[in-house]
Amino acid sequence: MEFHAEALVVTHAPNIYYLCGFLGSAGILVVEPTRVTLITDSRYMVQAREQTRESGVSVLIPKEPILMAAGDRLDSIRARKPRIALDFSHMTVSEKARLVKAARHSANWISGAGWVEGLRTIKSGPELRIMRAAALLISSVFDDVFKVIRPGIKELDLAAEMDYRMRKLGAEGPSFETIVASGPRAALPHARPTSRRLRRNELVVLDAGAILTGYCSDMTRTVFLGRATGRIRQWYKAVREAQKAACEATAAGVQAGVPDAAARRVLESYKLGKYFVHSTGHGLGLEVHEDPRLAKGQMARIEPGMVVTIEPGVYVPDIGGIRIEDDLAVHANGTEILTTTSRELLEL
Amino acid sequence: MEFHAEALVVTHAPNIYYLCGFLGSAGILVVEPTRVTLITDSRYMVQAREQTRESGVSVLIPKEPILMAAGDRLDSIRARKPRIALDFSHMTVSEKARLVKAARHSANWISGAGWVEGLRTIKSGPELRIMRAAALLISSVFDDVFKVIRPGIKELDLAAEMDYRMRKLGAEGPSFETIVASGPRAALPHARPTSRRLRRNELVVLDAGAILTGYCSDMTRTVFLGRATGRIRQWYKAVREAQKAACEATAAGVQAGVPDAAARRVLESYKLGKYFVHSTGHGLGLEVHEDPRLAKGQMARIEPGMVVTIEPGVYVPDIGGIRIEDDLAVHANGTEILTTTSRELLEL
Repeated sequence: MEFHAEALVVTHAPNIYYLCGFLGSAGILVVEPTRVTLITDSRYMVQAREQTRESGVSVLIPKEPILMAAGDRLDSIRARKPRIALDFSHMTVSEKARLVKAARHSANWISGAGWVEGLRTIKSGPELRIMRAAALLISSVFDDVFKVIRPGIKELDLAAEMDYRMRKLGAEGPSFETIVASGPRAALPHARPTSRRLRRNELVVLDAGAILTGYCSDMTRTVFLGRATGRIRQWYKAVREAQKAACEATAAGVQAGVPDAAARRVLESYKLGKYFVHSTGHGLGLEVHEDPRLAKGQMARIEPGMVVTIEPGVYVPDIGGIRIEDDLAVHANGTEILTTTSRELLEL
Repeated sequence: MEFHAEALVVTHAPNIYYLCGFLGSAGILVVEPTRVTLITDSRYMVQAREQTRESGVSVLIPKEPILMAAGDRLDSIRARKPRIALDFSHMTVSEKARLVKAARHSANWISGAGWVEGLRTIKSGPELRIMRAAALLISSVFDDVFKVIRPGIKELDLAAEMDYRMRKLGAEGPSFETIVASGPRAALPHARPTSRRLRRNELVVLDAGAILTGYCSDMTRTVFLGRATGRIRQWYKAVREAQKAACEATAAGVQAGVPDAAARRVLESYKLGKYFVHSTGHGLGLEVHEDPRLAKGQMARIEPGMVVTIEPGVYVPDIGGIRIEDDLAVHANGTEILTTTSRELLEL
C-alpha cells in the first residue's frame, strides 16, 4: 500500500497503539516521511517513553493542549500547500476545526480514513500468535463455565463469572460487554445481560471475547437447559450447518460476501432465512469489529493474514435464538479455526 | 436553557439514553419542536420499543443506513433554510458529510455541541438516588477488598476481584478500567493494572467506579502494605487535608476553579504542589467524565444538582503516589459526600 501525503495525523487510539505501542487515552501521532512524533500529555510522560522505546518515535509533552501542539508541528512542514491526511472517520468536526486553526498552514487537508485500518487487517506472525492465545483463552472460559450454568443463575451473574474467569486467565478484560441472553431474550441479537434468572427448558446464548495484550477474541455458543425439543434441534442443526458452510467458504482470494451467501443459502433451505437478521462476520484484531465485513454483497477480497469471525444465527421472536461463532485465521493455503470449544448442541 | 434550532440531531449514546431511554450501539435521535424520532437498526427493533415506551418517542427502523434515514427526516422540515444543530463534538467529519449530503436541504448547520451535556450536569431526584446507590456500591467493594489485599497478589487479579464484586452487588460493570497501581507504579496517575505483584512496604492506589442503571461512581483510596514511614504519613496527611479543603470549598454558586485552588494551596503549604499533576475533579453521571471540570482557573459556576469528584493526589517519581477521591452531590444548602469508605491511612 502507498499513501501520498506530506503528513498523516493519527488520532484513533488502536491505530496509535498499532503504529508505535502507546496505550493511553490522550495521544496524537504525527507521521512524516522522516520523523514520527507522539504528542501526549504530562500524565503519560513516563508511560509514553516506556511503551514506545522499541518503535523509535519521539515523544512530545507540550504545555499547550495536544491538538494545538499537533497543529504547530504541522505548521513546521516546509512544502508549499502540503497534503496533510486526517482521519475523518475518527476525528470530530470540532477537533478538525481546532487542528486546522492551530496549523495556520494553507494545507490541502485530505481524508486518511481507513489507511491504518487497512494495514491492520493483515496480521503479522506475532499478532497471530497473540490472537491464537486470546481465542484459546476465551474457549477455555466457555468450557469452564458450561460446568456451572444451571437454572436459577442470573444472566448478569453468569456474565460476571465469565469476565472474572477470563481475567484470572490473564486477559486484560472482555473485548465487549459479555452477552448472556436466556429464553425469549435470546431472540435479541444484541441483548445485554439482565437480572433475569435462567430457567429450565430454555436456550441460552453466550457471546464473549477476551482482550490479550491488546488483541480481541470473540465467540458465541448456545446451550439448552434441559432436553431440547425436535424443533430446537432442527434450528440448531440449521445454524450449525450454516456456520460450517460459511467457514468452508472463507478462503484467501474469495470476496467477503461469499461466506455470508453460503450461510444464508443453508438457512433458507431450512426456511429460516428471514430469522437471520445480521451479517455473517467481521474482521477481528485490536478492535472487536474491524474490516473486512462478511456481509451480503461485500466485494472486498479476503486476504492471507486476516482474522475474521463466522457467526450466523437465527432469532425467533418471543421464543429464543441460536448463534454459533468462531474466530478464523486465513492463510494462503487454508484457514485455521482459533476457537476450540465444541460446536455440538449442549443440553445441560 | 433555551436552544434555537428547527432540529437537533443527537448522536452521542449517553445523550440519547438521557433523552429517551434507549441503550444501543447504533442510534440517532432527531429532536424537532413537535416530534422526536429515534432511528436505529433492525437488531434493536424490540429493545428500542421496550426502552422508549415511557418517553413517547417514535421509533424508526429504516432499510437504509441510519445516517441516511436521519438525512431524509431532516429533509422533510418545511422551513426555508432551517437551523439544524449537530453535535460537532461527537460527530466525525465523515458522519457530518454523509448526513449533510443525505439531507439535501440547504440548511444552516450549527453546532449543538454540549447542549444535552449541559442539561445532564443537573441531576434530578431519581438520578441522584441512583448515583447515591452507585457510590454506596463502590464504597462497599472498597471496604470488602481491603480485607483481602496482601503482598503477593497481582495488580490485575486485585482489579478483577473488584470488578467481580461490584457486579455481584448489582453493577452493570466498572465505570472505567479499574486502576490498581502499586509501588513505583503508583506514581503514574493513570496506571493500568499489570501482572506486577504487590509488595510489603509499598503504597497501593485503588481507583474504581461502578455503573448502576447507567450512572457512574468513581472513587480512590490509597493504602500502605505495612507500617508507613514518617515521610509517607506526612504525604498522606497533606493529601487528606487537601481533599478535605477542596470538599469544603465545593458549594452551589462557587466557581469551578475554587475547589482546585483550595487543594493546591494545601499541597503547596506542604511543598508538594509540583507533585499534584492533574486537576481536582470532574462532573459525574452517565459518563465518568462530565462537566464541570474542577480545574485551575475554571470560571463556570457549580450548581445545585451537580455531582462531582474531588480527587487531589501527589505523585513522586520512582517512589509512589497517593490519591483520595470522593463523589459529592451539590445541594442548594450544602454538599453531600456519597462515597462512605474511611479516608484515614490504612496500614494493612
